[in-house]
Amino acid sequence: MTDAAINIGEWCHALATELFPICRSITGNGVRQTLARLALHLPSMVVHEVPSGTRCLDWTVPDEWNIRDAYILAPDGQKLCDFQRHNLHVVGYSEPVDAMLSLEELRPHLYTRPDLPDAIPYVTSYYKRRWGFCLTQRDFDSLRPGQYRVVIDATLAPGSLTYGEVLIPGETGEEVLLSTYICHPSMGNNELSGPVVAAALARWIGSLPQRRYSYRILFIPETIGSIVYISRNLKELRERVRAGFIVNCCGDERVYSFLPSRAGDTLSDRMALHVLRHHASDFVRYDFSDRGSDERQYCSPGVDLPIASIMRSKYSAYPEYHTSLDDLSLITPRGLAGAYDAFSRSILGIERNRRYRTTVLGEPNLGSRGLYPTLSQVGGAGAAKIRYMMDVLAYSDGEHDLLAIADIIGCPIWELYDILRSLVENELLELVE
Amino acid sequence: MTDAAINIGEWCHALATELFPICRSITGNGVRQTLARLALHLPSMVVHEVPSGTRCLDWTVPDEWNIRDAYILAPDGQKLCDFQRHNLHVVGYSEPVDAMLSLEELRPHLYTRPDLPDAIPYVTSYYKRRWGFCLTQRDFDSLRPGQYRVVIDATLAPGSLTYGEVLIPGETGEEVLLSTYICHPSMGNNELSGPVVAAALARWIGSLPQRRYSYRILFIPETIGSIVYISRNLKELRERVRAGFIVNCCGDERVYSFLPSRAGDTLSDRMALHVLRHHASDFVRYDFSDRGSDERQYCSPGVDLPIASIMRSKYSAYPEYHTSLDDLSLITPRGLAGAYDAFSRSILGIERNRRYRTTVLGEPNLGSRGLYPTLSQVGGAGAAKIRYMMDVLAYSDGEHDLLAIADIIGCPIWELYDILRSLVENELLELVE
Amino acid sequence: MTDAAINIGEWCHALATELFPICRSITGNGVRQTLARLALHLPSMVVHEVPSGTRCLDWTVPDEWNIRDAYILAPDGQKLCDFQRHNLHVVGYSEPVDAMLSLEELRPHLYTRPDLPDAIPYVTSYYKRRWGFCLTQRDFDSLRPGQYRVVIDATLAPGSLTYGEVLIPGETGEEVLLSTYICHPSMGNNELSGPVVAAALARWIGSLPQRRYSYRILFIPETIGSIVYISRNLKELRERVRAGFIVNCCGDERVYSFLPSRAGDTLSDRMALHVLRHHASDFVRYDFSDRGSDERQYCSPGVDLPIASIMRSKYSAYPEYHTSLDDLSLITPRGLAGAYDAFSRSILGIERNRRYRTTVLGEPNLGSRGLYPTLSQVGGAGAAKIRYMMDVLAYSDGEHDLLAIADIIGCPIWELYDILRSLVENELLELVE
Repeated sequence: MTDAAINIGEWCHALATELFPICRSITGNGVRQTLARLALHLPSMVVHEVPSGTRCLDWTVPDEWNIRDAYILAPDGQKLCDFQRHNLHVVGYSEPVDAMLSLEELRPHLYTRPDLPDAIPYVTSYYKRRWGFCLTQRDFDSLRPGQYRVVIDATLAPGSLTYGEVLIPGETGEEVLLSTYICHPSMGNNELSGPVVAAALARWIGSLPQRRYSYRILFIPETIGSIVYISRNLKELRERVRAGFIVNCCGDERVYSFLPSRAGDTLSDRMALHVLRHHASDFVRYDFSDRGSDERQYCSPGVDLPIASIMRSKYSAYPEYHTSLDDLSLITPRGLAGAYDAFSRSILGIERNRRYRTTVLGEPNLGSRGLYPTLSQVGGAGAAKIRYMMDVLAYSDGEHDLLAIADIIGCPIWELYDILRSLVENELLELVE
Repeated sequence: MTDAAINIGEWCHALATELFPICRSITGNGVRQTLARLALHLPSMVVHEVPSGTRCLDWTVPDEWNIRDAYILAPDGQKLCDFQRHNLHVVGYSEPVDAMLSLEELRPHLYTRPDLPDAIPYVTSYYKRRWGFCLTQRDFDSLRPGQYRVVIDATLAPGSLTYGEVLIPGETGEEVLLSTYICHPSMGNNELSGPVVAAALARWIGSLPQRRYSYRILFIPETIGSIVYISRNLKELRERVRAGFIVNCCGDERVYSFLPSRAGDTLSDRMALHVLRHHASDFVRYDFSDRGSDERQYCSPGVDLPIASIMRSKYSAYPEYHTSLDDLSLITPRGLAGAYDAFSRSILGIERNRRYRTTVLGEPNLGSRGLYPTLSQVGGAGAAKIRYMMDVLAYSDGEHDLLAIADIIGCPIWELYDILRSLVENELLELVE
Repeated sequence: MTDAAINIGEWCHALATELFPICRSITGNGVRQTLARLALHLPSMVVHEVPSGTRCLDWTVPDEWNIRDAYILAPDGQKLCDFQRHNLHVVGYSEPVDAMLSLEELRPHLYTRPDLPDAIPYVTSYYKRRWGFCLTQRDFDSLRPGQYRVVIDATLAPGSLTYGEVLIPGETGEEVLLSTYICHPSMGNNELSGPVVAAALARWIGSLPQRRYSYRILFIPETIGSIVYISRNLKELRERVRAGFIVNCCGDERVYSFLPSRAGDTLSDRMALHVLRHHASDFVRYDFSDRGSDERQYCSPGVDLPIASIMRSKYSAYPEYHTSLDDLSLITPRGLAGAYDAFSRSILGIERNRRYRTTVLGEPNLGSRGLYPTLSQVGGAGAAKIRYMMDVLAYSDGEHDLLAIADIIGCPIWELYDILRSLVENELLELVE
């Protein structure tokens, strides 16, 4: 990994550390604060507010949830499940409460992970009004009979759903979509890794001297956010989006993961698989039936966008998932940088992936153009070096795109960019379409 | 296996026991007696008689064969190869004979299985006039020189070829074809298992409250029977038959077998493979080049019907095949019931296999319809239960049929019927076509 | 291997021995002498001369090179790198020189193979004027300081490029192309094996009583030869050539090799793979990206001919490649005969590969035509023998060609020729198209 990549990883981790304490949910001020901080780095971000009650596809934007404090006072006066210490202690979207309950009455409102006795689980109840607390199994086991005071100082009332959108224009109206989540409270891999890597990618894309595609980068709450977004932009999305990725669970160092679009063979799928094969050949390849992120909406019948996922440890597939153990120590600069690299290579690959046609019949005379050694000798210097050039020429028939050629010859697409430029400059290849 | 299934297996085995002693061949009174007994359970059966000499495709209906008695009297007066003890003792379609022969003269007319010294082989000579006897190698070896009297009291004369046909009407004129054999003398797996399982299936199909397809169930002699049937019904078969199976060799317990249609990817093939994968994942998968049953006719060029075979131990692939060892002890209620289950699951799958389209864009709000848990929690109850529902919705794009969806998500199609009904009732799916 | 095949192998090896001493290059009198000797066996050969300077596709025909003598005189008077002893001692296309040089000045003009200390390497410099000598590493290491006289008595001047063409007419204008090289100096597998096997094939093709295809057999210098040929015959080649092979590296006994056309699934590819599977199932299967012969031109975009390679040890893939160790002992009558067999089987396969349709519906009555045993008995004689006949009938639907049928049933296509003739004679099959 290059120093530059590590630097980006450090930048991502620092941003995640800054965003970590904010209590996010699918609506509310935590989302707005998060977007505001991201916008410091992405000045072109437009923040949208969609009123509660708005119909979108088969759903309705829910009431807005804001929480100020929450805790349980034990019979001995001890403060338990203190929201100020960890925002996972409160079930997401809990309705307000201030009551005295016996332990028996309290228990149905408590959630633990018996299999991870030191973890506070992440639990939400967006669409049914209830309240609850999450705590470690160890703390749960130490609860003694008696009267408990439960306090959740929250508001659940009409407001709006908030999301951020960055549009980076390119030479054409064709678009690449990146989509990430800003609805998770204090957790690391799932999900602060997504928004910070997406922010880093957006800055890099904006800095490119040239872009064939326009880029649409969404910072949205999961599920309801993409449903809202699709309901407002379906026609545009279907007409413009040529490729795209969900950016989530991309911060730890353990593994790379790929989850395809529903169609499975879109440009996004082909490119992500190509990049991962060369970037981290031991990546885990999931099926669409393992899905659990917003490809559920983007790839649903009638929406049918070409959206795949490149991840590190996939949601549901690592032990700390959806608990307090998925914290800032789980994600690392190196882990974030690795994901950033895989995404940026995929995006660059999509930018550069074109179809070319040779301008001459038969192999061109490369020697006359100074592109070929003049002495033929077994093992001669340059023989290996020009092999890829010959291959690019041999397969540039106007049918194979550069990605197909790279796959056929078993070489990372990024090693072909210089060769391609040289062949185009020498007028041996011309662009098709 | 359910009690109901075992009961059907018992019913099948009892019927096979009843039919076992009858001496069947490709024509003759044994066929008529067999059809008459089957018709007691299938009152709508129509019995057809096709006169000897009738041209059918490239063949001619042969003379009718009827046999009353046959035996060999040894020099010591002992009765050998007594037809009354086992009808396999006589070569099928033997011409009548009553003669004295020396052992040397007799030998060319005797057939044994040296590799199975206690088995009487099953030998026929339908299209060349000859006579012969079959006996165990052990009996053959004990023959002593001397004069033998051979008697075959048979008639080989113009008559007719007999077959039975059951038509069970459905909502549409599209048909599923089942075809089985009533031409084998006293053998079990090949072939009384076929007609008794076909009879059980016909009774069950007739009892279904609703049928999309019509069902055509044929009880015919092998080869010449399907050739006769095709020659008389080709246009109808080609226009109507959407799927179908040969029902044969489906009575023992050792294994399940699958043999495809010539095309290999018809609805029959896809469904039978799907059912067997979930019903008996260690089934043996044969190629069409291993064929040896009436797919030879139904799948021949220009006929091209979508007919596959679901079997237990396949013809030619078990040691007792075409000998007296393939008797009523080889087939069992459990073996017959297993085949019945595989066929009935396939037929039900064909009935239920449709293409659906979601009525809403994006994932529907299942929670609002009471179809989804309202609390999101890792490992939460119901998470596993609703997975299939989400998958059916995700793939119901009007292109994938239910079978394709079941194959993608790796679940038996029959586990999707309730889910599908629920989604249709909730107006989340609509039928395509 | 049959005696006839061995005889052809002997014939090939004798012809190679005769041609071996001639110093060939991409132009010059060595090419003319080689073609003249080949023409003794192939009287219909037309020899073409293409003037130096002629533009062809992206190339120009180079000056003609002729060499009379070359050597180095060591300070002690010893003659080194004597062209008369081995023509590999001179770098191909060396310009004339006669000069005194110190060892230091000489060294940049000397080429060795340090990894093969007893081998003289094969080095050429067709398109850049230079001169040089090739010698064993052992000789190189024994050179002492002092003044060396270097002499290359050669001419590099306008003349022409020479190639031979044999056209063997068939019933149709559709063609099979064979292409081989006559530009290599004294080496065996690469490349005298190619022209001698191509000559033997041409004689055999010419002797066939009947040919559906016409045959175009080219004896050309590598790369520039095919480029010249394509530039003069592109329209004809594209319109007529239905299949074809490069004939090169086909003389040793070690292995069989296959290298596909760029398209990969042409008739040539399918047939060569089929033949090699049955002829030498342990053959090595290369990819088009391993190419290095004239498929680089014939399969280039816009030319797109269906040309594959059947080889013994492939160029670049055996240790003696492009050195003096690739001599007449490396190629053997047996090795050459094996390649000849693979080619002739492929050619015959291409000739015989047609699509047929059954004339009757259902299985024909083979017994009535004497093509089927009349007695049905397990393991009966003939059962195995007629299996292929039944398979040919079962798959002759006008869609599968004979090659596809042979591949489905896993049988060499040549075992189906007699069966096919018998079925056509019995009017059970008719030719399609």
